[in-house]
Amino acid sequence: MRVALTVADFLDRAETAFAAATAIVDEPNQPAAAVPTTTYSELARRARAWQSGFDALGVGVGERVAVVSHNAARLQELLLAVPASGRVCVPVNFRLRAEEVDYIVRHSGASVLLVDPELDADLSGIGAAHRFVLGSRTETELMRFDTEPRAWSDPDEDATACINYTSGTTARPKGVQVTHRNVWINATVFGLHLRAWEQDVYLHTLPMFHCNGWGLPYVLAGLGAKQVVLRKVDGAEILRRVAEHGVTLMCGAPAVWNAVLDAAQDWDGELPGRDRVRIVCAGAPPPTRTIARVESELGWQFIQLYGLTETSPILTFNRTRPADVALPPQERARKLTRAGAPALGTRLRIGDTGEVLARSNTVLAGYWNNPDATAEALAGGWFHTGDGGSLDDEGHLTISDRKKDVIITGGENVSSIEVEDCIYALPGVAEVAVIGVPHPKWGETVVALVVPAPGSTVTDQDIISHCKTHLAGYKSPTAVEFRDSIPRTATGKIQKFKLREQYRAARPT
Amino acid sequence: MRVALTVADFLDRAETAFAAATAIVDEPNQPAAAVPTTTYSELARRARAWQSGFDALGVGVGERVAVVSHNAARLQELLLAVPASGRVCVPVNFRLRAEEVDYIVRHSGASVLLVDPELDADLSGIGAAHRFVLGSRTETELMRFDTEPRAWSDPDEDATACINYTSGTTARPKGVQVTHRNVWINATVFGLHLRAWEQDVYLHTLPMFHCNGWGLPYVLAGLGAKQVVLRKVDGAEILRRVAEHGVTLMCGAPAVWNAVLDAAQDWDGELPGRDRVRIVCAGAPPPTRTIARVESELGWQFIQLYGLTETSPILTFNRTRPADVALPPQERARKLTRAGAPALGTRLRIGDTGEVLARSNTVLAGYWNNPDATAEALAGGWFHTGDGGSLDDEGHLTISDRKKDVIITGGENVSSIEVEDCIYALPGVAEVAVIGVPHPKWGETVVALVVPAPGSTVTDQDIISHCKTHLAGYKSPTAVEFRDSIPRTATGKIQKFKLREQYRAARPT
Repeated sequence: MRVALTVADFLDRAETAFAAATAIVDEPNQPAAAVPTTTYSELARRARAWQSGFDALGVGVGERVAVVSHNAARLQELLLAVPASGRVCVPVNFRLRAEEVDYIVRHSGASVLLVDPELDADLSGIGAAHRFVLGSRTETELMRFDTEPRAWSDPDEDATACINYTSGTTARPKGVQVTHRNVWINATVFGLHLRAWEQDVYLHTLPMFHCNGWGLPYVLAGLGAKQVVLRKVDGAEILRRVAEHGVTLMCGAPAVWNAVLDAAQDWDGELPGRDRVRIVCAGAPPPTRTIARVESELGWQFIQLYGLTETSPILTFNRTRPADVALPPQERARKLTRAGAPALGTRLRIGDTGEVLARSNTVLAGYWNNPDATAEALAGGWFHTGDGGSLDDEGHLTISDRKKDVIITGGENVSSIEVEDCIYALPGVAEVAVIGVPHPKWGETVVALVVPAPGSTVTDQDIISHCKTHLAGYKSPTAVEFRDSIPRTATGKIQKFKLREQYRAARPT
Repeated sequence: MRVALTVADFLDRAETAFAAATAIVDEPNQPAAAVPTTTYSELARRARAWQSGFDALGVGVGERVAVVSHNAARLQELLLAVPASGRVCVPVNFRLRAEEVDYIVRHSGASVLLVDPELDADLSGIGAAHRFVLGSRTETELMRFDTEPRAWSDPDEDATACINYTSGTTARPKGVQVTHRNVWINATVFGLHLRAWEQDVYLHTLPMFHCNGWGLPYVLAGLGAKQVVLRKVDGAEILRRVAEHGVTLMCGAPAVWNAVLDAAQDWDGELPGRDRVRIVCAGAPPPTRTIARVESELGWQFIQLYGLTETSPILTFNRTRPADVALPPQERARKLTRAGAPALGTRLRIGDTGEVLARSNTVLAGYWNNPDATAEALAGGWFHTGDGGSLDDEGHLTISDRKKDVIITGGENVSSIEVEDCIYALPGVAEVAVIGVPHPKWGETVVALVVPAPGSTVTDQDIISHCKTHLAGYKSPTAVEFRDSIPRTATGKIQKFKLREQYRAARPT
């Protein structure tokens, strides 16, 4: 018997088998947005009210529902409810500027836009056929608690569940179409490798919109685990929540763990979670020293993951193997800087140019309304990651260089081309190259190399403040260096690899 | 991207990511059959030699390869290699009599028959186009280690991976067609719920042929876990292996755990595996007292699973929930007698007649060459388990009665009709009804109720020895009771439910 693998599977098991279990503890002190502690039965009831609400509004199956929100219980429920109802969820990065959000809402053709109350004022100009601010009005005006519940939509497993916009090699973000099957296999296989279970307590240190929280909002619901919302990353607050809720599991970019390690210096008393917490790190791998400190100072198990928004994201997974348990801590940590071994069902190979290629059920169906980019990414039946890497004799992947000009800072993807476009708009700039350079806290930071036009008086502060006006803060350069020229290949391409090289040496290990 | 979910995924990950890890420790002191301790790299090399051997023999993709073997490293490698090579594996119960094996080999149309050396003499009359005794001759005459390895067959995920013959409501066993997708989802979801990982050490207390070891031979390979072969269930030997190999995980019918509990009485010193071992029990649930003893006397975690050969087998899973950890031991054990909550992706409902119905990707594609039985089992888009049950307010299933006349004794399915057929062949028997009655060690035992023909002098020993001649030992009645008549319904059906009722009261709890 074939039954479609769908997002509803997770919601369904949560409701059937874990009705009375705590599903979500929302962020406290957020009256406008807060849902109090929710059971999985209540979560499923609310998800049905969303479904009936979309029905009543005339939003058809397959239509897009965009959500711009900080981490919140409501976002978690929408990640499940929107695809389970047969609509397509478009979770938007809450750090984007209004014009960036506007582009995504328009490009995805979203007929519903749901906005975090904290972001309402900034996004007041952005609309869709139906625009709602998440909170009490959504519950009275959109959700329908009074209608007879009906079964979840039963889409084909290849139907689109989410469109996740990501900055890549182009100026505009591309919409990654993630199918129900993609979500299901990513979440289940990640849960398998993580050994997630009903006794886990998960703290949302990762933005839920980001590859849909890497899949944990789905599989943890299916396993009946407790989830604790965290709206803003703050090292000391993370330690407090770990202690308060008995947290066992967290995910995040290296910057999150650096923030925790910093806060641990000032922590009074015994640090919480020793020998109980496991953390998963993705994005640029942190220095060996950070990994060693997480394991020794915090006593938390460190796990590395590698993937892209285009791969749902899991491709590889790296946890200390039985054979390595007895290694000296520094050596063990060094092995954990590798991206890891392919996840179950994922095949990797290194292409002729040194590029990492992947075949997996977690690879995207395509880019939304962008057949050319889709064909390019999936050329030859393999997904082209754009990252350079190598496979060692333990079958582990190490990423050596990102071929695409994507900067990853604090876990966020930044398209260097998008930032260059923005800087080029400023008078007095003759040429610009934007690169990521290693940064101990953020993994990478954005640096602009600028060739000024003759006679230009443009300053580094002019450039930075111009970027901050038009782009999300994390995309704006933290430094500008003026140059006489920028090296190019014979065919005129900027050699960013050479530009980055001078910074590589400074990288802590 | 859609990539077929196949058995090769497990083998592939084992070889890529766990090449140097110990795969299998074979049964010692079995020179004819033994492969010494094997790494996953060696296992994959041997699997490729099987593939090249089938190629050289002219056995085509989709052809059936039947294997009759006790648990052995070679059986484990065949469970992976045969489907990965695109052929269909037909693992046959090693306890069957020659004529029963012959039926399965013929019915499945197997072109290759592989026989355990210990069974060769008993099965000397059974052939196929190609018949080999597992052992050194297989390696020189069939397997091809010298050919260039080629990629695994890349079948559609709906292609048949195995045909598992099971005794059911008919006199002859039926061949359950399990697809690659069935195997993949069963193994992955079972691994997820079990929290299986690379640090597990699994002892094969369950016959590998039986629902293909419930899926663990696949997922444990994919996770790089060590597997220890056990050829014959013996309580004391299980305890010795648990101690010797640091075993963490085992599966089996209630009779296995009763044997271990018995052996524990005579164990010298501290019992091995306390707070480390988890066991999974399926078949008829054991009495509450057995569960409580496993948890208190052995200190092993008890997990209940419910499923059928037709469902790959996982349908439900029952492990003590966080909310129940603090319950009194007896109460906790009582909750563990339930079949459990539906596994991820499984929907259950109770039909009008009280029958448990299931929809899941673990449900069989069909019965081999038996469209009528397939249509009946899958009528209305739900799989009809034939078992009566109920769902409680915790979403857990409890099996109250088996509607089909299947007896489960020591984890083996026995078709009462098959045994009746056999007894009817004996002169002097007017009428017979075979039922399973509760048994403290075997779960159920086979009892024959016989109405003798007028003037007949047939004895209970005549009947038992007649059965032992024609059927596997476990199918033969352990007791015969003579009756004047057997109750029937208005339409002439024997009311086995009524026959069993008198024994229910005697059931220990």
